[in-house]
Amino acid sequence: MSREDTLNDTLNAIEPIDKNYIIKAQKMSDNLTKPLGSLGRLEELASLVCGIKRTLKPKIENKVIFTLAADHGVAEEGVSAFPQEVTKEMISNFVNGGAGVNVLARHVNAKVIVIDMGVKGEILTDGVVIKKVAHGTKNFTKGRAMTREQAIGSVIYGIELVDEEMKKEALDIVGTGDMGIANTTPSSAVVAAITKVDVEKITGKGTGITDEIFNKKIEVIKKGLNLNKPNPDDAIDVLSKVGGFEIGGIAGVIIGCAKNKIPVVIDGFISGAGALLAYKLNPLTKDYMLASHQSVEQGHKILLEHIGLKPLLNLNLRLGEGTGSALAINLVEASCKILNEMATFEEAEISNKIR
Amino acid sequence: MSREDTLNDTLNAIEPIDKNYIIKAQKMSDNLTKPLGSLGRLEELASLVCGIKRTLKPKIENKVIFTLAADHGVAEEGVSAFPQEVTKEMISNFVNGGAGVNVLARHVNAKVIVIDMGVKGEILTDGVVIKKVAHGTKNFTKGRAMTREQAIGSVIYGIELVDEEMKKEALDIVGTGDMGIANTTPSSAVVAAITKVDVEKITGKGTGITDEIFNKKIEVIKKGLNLNKPNPDDAIDVLSKVGGFEIGGIAGVIIGCAKNKIPVVIDGFISGAGALLAYKLNPLTKDYMLASHQSVEQGHKILLEHIGLKPLLNLNLRLGEGTGSALAINLVEASCKILNEMATFEEAEISNKIR
Repeated sequence: MSREDTLNDTLNAIEPIDKNYIIKAQKMSDNLTKPLGSLGRLEELASLVCGIKRTLKPKIENKVIFTLAADHGVAEEGVSAFPQEVTKEMISNFVNGGAGVNVLARHVNAKVIVIDMGVKGEILTDGVVIKKVAHGTKNFTKGRAMTREQAIGSVIYGIELVDEEMKKEALDIVGTGDMGIANTTPSSAVVAAITKVDVEKITGKGTGITDEIFNKKIEVIKKGLNLNKPNPDDAIDVLSKVGGFEIGGIAGVIIGCAKNKIPVVIDGFISGAGALLAYKLNPLTKDYMLASHQSVEQGHKILLEHIGLKPLLNLNLRLGEGTGSALAINLVEASCKILNEMATFEEAEISNKIR
Repeated sequence: MSREDTLNDTLNAIEPIDKNYIIKAQKMSDNLTKPLGSLGRLEELASLVCGIKRTLKPKIENKVIFTLAADHGVAEEGVSAFPQEVTKEMISNFVNGGAGVNVLARHVNAKVIVIDMGVKGEILTDGVVIKKVAHGTKNFTKGRAMTREQAIGSVIYGIELVDEEMKKEALDIVGTGDMGIANTTPSSAVVAAITKVDVEKITGKGTGITDEIFNKKIEVIKKGLNLNKPNPDDAIDVLSKVGGFEIGGIAGVIIGCAKNKIPVVIDGFISGAGALLAYKLNPLTKDYMLASHQSVEQGHKILLEHIGLKPLLNLNLRLGEGTGSALAINLVEASCKILNEMATFEEAEISNKIR
């Protein structure tokens, strides 16, 4: 069986979430000591988790954030404010617990798993999961970023990450995260290719670039799209021509979560590009996704709307790594505690609505 | 010295926050291993806490939510979906840990302190702080809700709550919360009186009332304002004519926090009405406030803009009790951990920006 057949088998194995549990959970919520619907999106979140996990006692205890790192050939066009070495340097920072995602993951009691999906150079640091597709993608202004086989491989690696972790201990929730200097550039290209929205409307300032570099970034993305002509109806074609290994890996993590019936929190713009690919590969994955936050990157809103996701937080974040995922995981956990721990009107002997 | 002089002395004792600490904290933030400003509002929150507490090592450990309960004479006009007994019944639910605020406070490791500010009937439940101004306010469609002395008394009680708690252990952060059947009605009246915005634009559907009751609620508020003619420049006059004991108490808690240099998280619409009164009594209190969330109640946006506060969460909440405060306290805590725990570029040996 080819790798593509393996991927398709996994995609075909994804089941829809169970709407009956959503209805039952909402009925439970309606009987808790509060006005109907007054906990708004917390009630929706809890119900969704029930629908995904097929339970009315949803627990969020084993929490994992996958932070996928890779390098990008297109960085040589000078589209980022940071040098490419930072991808590798940040991996040590993740392993040592000093990055933003580490602090926020500790705060919400989640584990960070760092993955080398395709960083340039060898990663010798202990504690990094190696799923290396190659030493960075190729520069997509000169040809495709990766082969079709590599694209499929990156997605399969992402699925494996979830499967392998599940073999150790059942995951209650997963958050996605990314690291990769220049990766808003391929992410913008992926989003523009799939949504067919103008590159100018998709592209943002990433880590904080000047106007001059920003204009260059737009040109670079347009050049890559014009040269490679990705087929918007073939997510693997888009990924291979203008994507990145961590973006494919994130799509895989999402597919892996849907396959294993685990809620998956999508971080920011790069994770969103991965989510868009997963959604194109199988729209059923959408119901397993929760959008953590509205990023400052302007293309983020467009991609979330395309999938049909409403972000939970709007804190002007644009760091990535899984920082938004960590904060949102905490809200999902809170929502499940509401369902499990609040008293009902009957238990608390409280008079219900009269009018 | 009269009670009013006592209140004025406290108001005059409030010091501005220290902007130097805000600048220093932002500089620290700029040196952490992330692109400049990429943690958005988390960075702002941490800096604000530094400015309030005059420290560069802000800790958020001792967390308290004050849930202030009271009854409202105007409930007899039939403006709520729930019977008045629910206020008293919910106090038992709070003490037993079964209400929404209890679940969310446990989730964020905060303590809930329940206060009887003026519930109808005697509260015999153990574990309730008694700061009872009276057995509910009077119906403001027939005269003022309370005397000027009672209004001042409710604010002073709120200040005492913070002072008394501080004597036991230093509070790192405070959240406000409310309980009181019909209390969106006096809150809307307070907000309309102070902001001078039309009652129709301020009033929402509270716990979920029918269109018929909603129209009646608007009429009731207009009647109260026309009859009592509160002076928008005199917050105590507004509170005494159309307010409530828990609303005055919340204003007091905020003033108490500003006096004691403690960040105070404002819950939803009712807490917002209290915040508006505190702001009118001394605008310096504003810098000690953090708006937890954007409530579904339509007047909430108007009052937050009037004070100049930007909500942190937008989850369609409309429960009150301090539920929004609990969730936001967790974000503030996260923001301080970022400042304290993230590695700097130098510590992590990471290359900084090149362009």
